[in-house]
Amino acid sequence: MAAPALAQDALDVHTETTVTFYLLVMVLVFLMHPGFSMLEAGLTASNNAANIMMKNMMVISITFIAYFAVGWGLHYGVSAGGLFGTNEFFIVPGTYGAELGDFAFLSSEFMFDAVFAATAATIVSGAVAGRMNLWGFMVLTLVMTAVIYPVVGHWGWGGGWLEEGGFVDFAGSTIVHLTGGVAAITAAAILGPRPGKYDDRGKARITPGHSSPLAILGVFLLFFGWFGFNGGSVLPDPDTIDGPLFLEIGPVLLTTALAASAGAITAAVISAIRSGGKTDVSMTGNGLLAGLVGITAGADLVEPYAAILVGLVAGILVSIAVPLVERMGVDDAVGAFSVHGVCGVLGTWWVGFYAVDGGLFYGGGFDLASWAIIGTVAVTVFVALMTAVVCYALKSAGLLRVDDGALEEEGLDVHEHGMAGYPEGALAGNTE
Amino acid sequence: MAAPALAQDALDVHTETTVTFYLLVMVLVFLMHPGFSMLEAGLTASNNAANIMMKNMMVISITFIAYFAVGWGLHYGVSAGGLFGTNEFFIVPGTYGAELGDFAFLSSEFMFDAVFAATAATIVSGAVAGRMNLWGFMVLTLVMTAVIYPVVGHWGWGGGWLEEGGFVDFAGSTIVHLTGGVAAITAAAILGPRPGKYDDRGKARITPGHSSPLAILGVFLLFFGWFGFNGGSVLPDPDTIDGPLFLEIGPVLLTTALAASAGAITAAVISAIRSGGKTDVSMTGNGLLAGLVGITAGADLVEPYAAILVGLVAGILVSIAVPLVERMGVDDAVGAFSVHGVCGVLGTWWVGFYAVDGGLFYGGGFDLASWAIIGTVAVTVFVALMTAVVCYALKSAGLLRVDDGALEEEGLDVHEHGMAGYPEGALAGNTE
Amino acid sequence: MAAPALAQDALDVHTETTVTFYLLVMVLVFLMHPGFSMLEAGLTASNNAANIMMKNMMVISITFIAYFAVGWGLHYGVSAGGLFGTNEFFIVPGTYGAELGDFAFLSSEFMFDAVFAATAATIVSGAVAGRMNLWGFMVLTLVMTAVIYPVVGHWGWGGGWLEEGGFVDFAGSTIVHLTGGVAAITAAAILGPRPGKYDDRGKARITPGHSSPLAILGVFLLFFGWFGFNGGSVLPDPDTIDGPLFLEIGPVLLTTALAASAGAITAAVISAIRSGGKTDVSMTGNGLLAGLVGITAGADLVEPYAAILVGLVAGILVSIAVPLVERMGVDDAVGAFSVHGVCGVLGTWWVGFYAVDGGLFYGGGFDLASWAIIGTVAVTVFVALMTAVVCYALKSAGLLRVDDGALEEEGLDVHEHGMAGYPEGALAGNTE
Repeated sequence: MAAPALAQDALDVHTETTVTFYLLVMVLVFLMHPGFSMLEAGLTASNNAANIMMKNMMVISITFIAYFAVGWGLHYGVSAGGLFGTNEFFIVPGTYGAELGDFAFLSSEFMFDAVFAATAATIVSGAVAGRMNLWGFMVLTLVMTAVIYPVVGHWGWGGGWLEEGGFVDFAGSTIVHLTGGVAAITAAAILGPRPGKYDDRGKARITPGHSSPLAILGVFLLFFGWFGFNGGSVLPDPDTIDGPLFLEIGPVLLTTALAASAGAITAAVISAIRSGGKTDVSMTGNGLLAGLVGITAGADLVEPYAAILVGLVAGILVSIAVPLVERMGVDDAVGAFSVHGVCGVLGTWWVGFYAVDGGLFYGGGFDLASWAIIGTVAVTVFVALMTAVVCYALKSAGLLRVDDGALEEEGLDVHEHGMAGYPEGALAGNTE
Repeated sequence: MAAPALAQDALDVHTETTVTFYLLVMVLVFLMHPGFSMLEAGLTASNNAANIMMKNMMVISITFIAYFAVGWGLHYGVSAGGLFGTNEFFIVPGTYGAELGDFAFLSSEFMFDAVFAATAATIVSGAVAGRMNLWGFMVLTLVMTAVIYPVVGHWGWGGGWLEEGGFVDFAGSTIVHLTGGVAAITAAAILGPRPGKYDDRGKARITPGHSSPLAILGVFLLFFGWFGFNGGSVLPDPDTIDGPLFLEIGPVLLTTALAASAGAITAAVISAIRSGGKTDVSMTGNGLLAGLVGITAGADLVEPYAAILVGLVAGILVSIAVPLVERMGVDDAVGAFSVHGVCGVLGTWWVGFYAVDGGLFYGGGFDLASWAIIGTVAVTVFVALMTAVVCYALKSAGLLRVDDGALEEEGLDVHEHGMAGYPEGALAGNTE
Repeated sequence: MAAPALAQDALDVHTETTVTFYLLVMVLVFLMHPGFSMLEAGLTASNNAANIMMKNMMVISITFIAYFAVGWGLHYGVSAGGLFGTNEFFIVPGTYGAELGDFAFLSSEFMFDAVFAATAATIVSGAVAGRMNLWGFMVLTLVMTAVIYPVVGHWGWGGGWLEEGGFVDFAGSTIVHLTGGVAAITAAAILGPRPGKYDDRGKARITPGHSSPLAILGVFLLFFGWFGFNGGSVLPDPDTIDGPLFLEIGPVLLTTALAASAGAITAAVISAIRSGGKTDVSMTGNGLLAGLVGITAGADLVEPYAAILVGLVAGILVSIAVPLVERMGVDDAVGAFSVHGVCGVLGTWWVGFYAVDGGLFYGGGFDLASWAIIGTVAVTVFVALMTAVVCYALKSAGLLRVDDGALEEEGLDVHEHGMAGYPEGALAGNTE
């Protein structure tokens, strides 16, 4: 007689803990957005700093509304042939209001998912810095968070064809980061480089950012948020008391930290070797982020020593990819594709080949590995196509790119916002 | 026999969760203080940046001590006729020390309440930037957090006459934000404008801030903290296991995010319409904050679609109020009254008229709506009077305003702190 | 029959809560690292800002790997005569992988401990700003986090001779802060001052930082993180449901906040008295941090009123120590020893003499007080010796200090990283 009441008590406390947990991991991921803002501003010229702030505010604002209205339904609704969801738009119509029920808990889950959607979209922001039209960027963000990311998310996490097939991506090396990275480089390629990025013979010029403290503050905020990004991806169920599931968070945090650390150290050492001893601060920051992206797919399935390896490889790959992309004539202003795209693939494939539970290396057969390859290829093709369609549509509407003459004359801040990012003329770039 | 032990176990885990929850939401709100610091510094001239940092450190420091010694007792003590509390000064004397009891849990609740008190006080800081005497500001902060905010808090949340009457304000659109906003504009009006703010014919000059990255970092930190501000306001009880109460947090976070997003987008679009296409970065940030203030009173009682409406209206109101206040000759340096005062009223009235549970629109009668109006009027009158008394007292003591000649010659940083906010002379404003 | 299942439910929810708690307090402490980065950059010249960012990224990266591989085992492994741990290297070899067990929970605890280790190491970073070789700094960090801090930690928290004797240090005034502070001043003394710090007659020159907003953002992030540093140090046990233990967190947060506040106000007032009314912004920030360090050893054992006293004394001590250290010819660029070393001793001794439970003043006898003195002396001697050995080894390897000529000519950023911290030449210090 007393027993059911007690069981209900334990379940009620489980509800309390689960909601508190989702609040925590959601705000951690939310703080990645000022992180991206500071990173992008710090790594680019001061005369587009205000524009970067505006873009990042628009990303988070558009995402909350678009993903609420459309995205979440496409992501998690009842599947139409494994391709996209078909209901749960506006979360779950008809159950709003004072009475609490499924809607209440879904709102907590929605918030955690929404900041993921915003992450995929904001990766684009850095790559296209310094020349994209703001309204065009807002349209691209809308399509990213209402359609592109949700459809990819449905494939991998919402009961879609990849998930059903056997594709595994714990916290989103592919679903979030490769999606963002591919959209970023596609948009950057179609946009063309910033004026002055390449000299007359097509050789890339160095375009240093304007503030290393802001850039690295951004890196630290991203690292901080990533503990929620990966830690939260164990996804506790509101109806089931599950201590062992929460216990997995510890190893997830550990592999996340080790991969990031190895990525940073590796990139620092490589930059020193290349330059006769001078370590490159922004490349080190990118190496740290590369390690984080690389571990994201398998943070729960990779042993700690292997997480160090993932970070090491990620640090090498990003050090190769950044100059390679530049030499190919694509001006990815902050190395977004090298970090999120290249290392997103690394992370996903690593799971396929080296996951302790199911990877080829551990005798798991070809299943996980094949689906890792299929998943990354499918996502790359889909996202590149969709982004290209949006960008060419924007181009024909005159909303893709700010005129080069205007950029050279007044910078993006003045052109788009009528004011400098540092209105007192703080920085040489503005005052000269 | 075993049953009581199990019930105790569940209650003990509830204690663990509740304390963890209060720790989480308290630190979230705490981070609003660097948020305000960065916002205020970014939106004003570089030659008072150090002063703004000092003021914000003093706000949090004075608050913890003053609200501990006096404020919390006035806020939550046994009511003297509904007007103010009369005991629990220094939390609860006599129960300190190694033995844990009510004091222990009260300390957790105190910390959450104290960062609210600091929020009300710090809203003033931005409005009076650039000309207020530091010691005068410290005295005003002391009175705000020891008396003014606690008395208002008692009326609305501590068993006072507003709460008893039927006034509803979930997380403080009136109790915190209107209180801060009214104090801010009252102090700004009595202080008079910054030197040079108005030209000879009384026309306001544009006074751009000095750093959009710092300002928008501040906006993001405030948005981040607001999830604790609103989410924490469900106020779990340490003695009662209550899963359904925690479930309300999800919808609260959702309405908070939607209102902020709609406020930002609305303010951006309005600024573009006004200026022929150039979006205003700081007005967009203020629009986001306006949406947050507007949803704060009813985050738990407003449907998600309506939260978008709240943000939209808040974005419009702040876009109207900022230039209006300026034209009226009051120099509110960061638009504090337009954001926290005007949208604080909006949020409170919205609950009275449109709360799904009790609002006039939903057939709830005039009760909630009348009390919303009574509450906002009473708080406005009380706070304006109290602030005016303090400011005129400071004026007659020579502690209100820094001399204009000194301000023009060396700026507030040098005058008050003997050093520039950017001591290397980083910014044109300092070096010229 | 039903009863065991229910007991298991409560224990499972306890696991959920405990893991969530460790995630929360770990990320709070993690955010102290961008806090230190911003503080150190803001308080020093702009031409080593990039270098400070690099050092802080290296501290956290080296720590995670070194403390994982070696440090944690020395810290918490089975004790060799009370001197150091001897197992649990790489946490617990042999239990990794899919099966969860002790390893899983240990990972959560490891993460919390690792960010403490990084804190001890990063304190050095500020003191040696502006002239230390990066590779030398990385080696010192490695030794700090793999050996020095873990050994001290073993003595005080890992079952070592200090803990067994009766030494009490709740969250690390001695174990973390004195360790960091002594290493900092030892390294700074051996390094010698920055070029230009002292004039020809040995008188110290004022070396203002370059950005008060960054410095005070750092102070706020440190304050924020300290709630996790102290709050998390109640150290809940994964196997034991313990509500009363969690209840202690409230008083811990309260004493932490009160001490910090009193420290800030005291330092502000002292600076005003010294300079005829001009409050010193960076000294106020240091006063706040001094209060935090001072309360760390006894946050759970000091009454709230006494926490205010601790902050007051800490604010006085740091105001005396900073100019004293400078006059002694040691260039501690951010006052690290005065904050973390001097006030680390203060906090530890305060527990010995005034802890409500065991302190001399409360009739507890000489035991706690004697061990407080023994502990601080032993840690000071050990850390100073170890740091000196490392620094002289680096010196003979030519890895300790950057050549003065190079520093004067191009600044540390350009010399070590081939680029300025503000590459557009934002700051006068760079462009002149």
